[in-house]
Amino acid sequence: MQARSEETRGRILQSAMTLFGRQGYDATGVAGICEAAAVSKGAFYHHFASKQAVFLNLLEEWLQSVEVDLAGALAEAPNVVDGLLGMAARTRGIFTAADGRLSIFLEFWAQARKDPEVWRRVIEPFRRYRELFAAVIQRGVAEGTFRPVDPATAAQALVSLAVGVIMQGVFDPRGAEWDRVTQEAVGLFIEGIGKR
Amino acid sequence: MQARSEETRGRILQSAMTLFGRQGYDATGVAGICEAAAVSKGAFYHHFASKQAVFLNLLEEWLQSVEVDLAGALAEAPNVVDGLLGMAARTRGIFTAADGRLSIFLEFWAQARKDPEVWRRVIEPFRRYRELFAAVIQRGVAEGTFRPVDPATAAQALVSLAVGVIMQGVFDPRGAEWDRVTQEAVGLFIEGIGKR
Repeated sequence: MQARSEETRGRILQSAMTLFGRQGYDATGVAGICEAAAVSKGAFYHHFASKQAVFLNLLEEWLQSVEVDLAGALAEAPNVVDGLLGMAARTRGIFTAADGRLSIFLEFWAQARKDPEVWRRVIEPFRRYRELFAAVIQRGVAEGTFRPVDPATAAQALVSLAVGVIMQGVFDPRGAEWDRVTQEAVGLFIEGIGKR
Repeated sequence: MQARSEETRGRILQSAMTLFGRQGYDATGVAGICEAAAVSKGAFYHHFASKQAVFLNLLEEWLQSVEVDLAGALAEAPNVVDGLLGMAARTRGIFTAADGRLSIFLEFWAQARKDPEVWRRVIEPFRRYRELFAAVIQRGVAEGTFRPVDPATAAQALVSLAVGVIMQGVFDPRGAEWDRVTQEAVGLFIEGIGKR
């Protein structure tokens, strides 16, 4: 029974992500999610208190998977330069994910403007990413790999670069090879703060 | 009569910008815009064919003012480094504009997903900005101010940086002094591609 319950929960999340991405959060209702997932309303409310709860769950899962991925790239790397380049390379997964994750990225931001709870959860990881990058850059400066740049500024620049590339990738998917752009732009930046 | 007509048109645009920014495009109707602007529906339709026409007009005006501002900063500068730093400094105006322009920035992007005409007009200037930056960087490389970086990659990084900072500024206005962040991050990037 446990396995079946998990499978139902997963199907609700998957259907909700597809619908939010395709038609937006506001235009999607619990009834539509139930229909797409082929579950009853009773089953839906057994797993989630509301449409918002499904949405926050998707957001949380997405942010966590990105964070685990980035931390993994850093942990595997022999030095800070390779660590940061490795993190940039991991963004490939974000752009190639075919499950519609990228198309609901904007929906998260749009809802954040209207819903303080979503806002809090969208904003918080950006602050964490900035701290994570700042710590890495600080290490690079201490090791003498990087010039004595301000770690907070450099981290903010890196996070902004990433956000900017993702936003453009969402809107203009065919405008560039976005995963290559990310790697090259981050590479150029890292080279720029490196000692020569 | 001409002056009064212009004044009416301006009031419609101003009211629409406030409402789109505060409650979103979808939740705003022509009736609401007319009420806020204290104009009749007849006057509204004399100036604009639809709500979408008002929206596209606001988008176009905003993008043009940004572009004129950036081009001006570049033209005034004695060299490419100062030109790029001057462009970054001009973004201050974007963040300090009190008229709600920033708060409808996201609304433009959200509508772009649903409306191909909005999409075309939102995407097109990004491509122009990339070309503008690439030309400047190319000049810097030719002059020997910059290292022999790939102008297209560097331009893409700069545009992404700007988009990322603006997006974060929209969402987390108190999370940082965003105009200072822009200048410092761009400064760091320019320094990074500069010859030492």
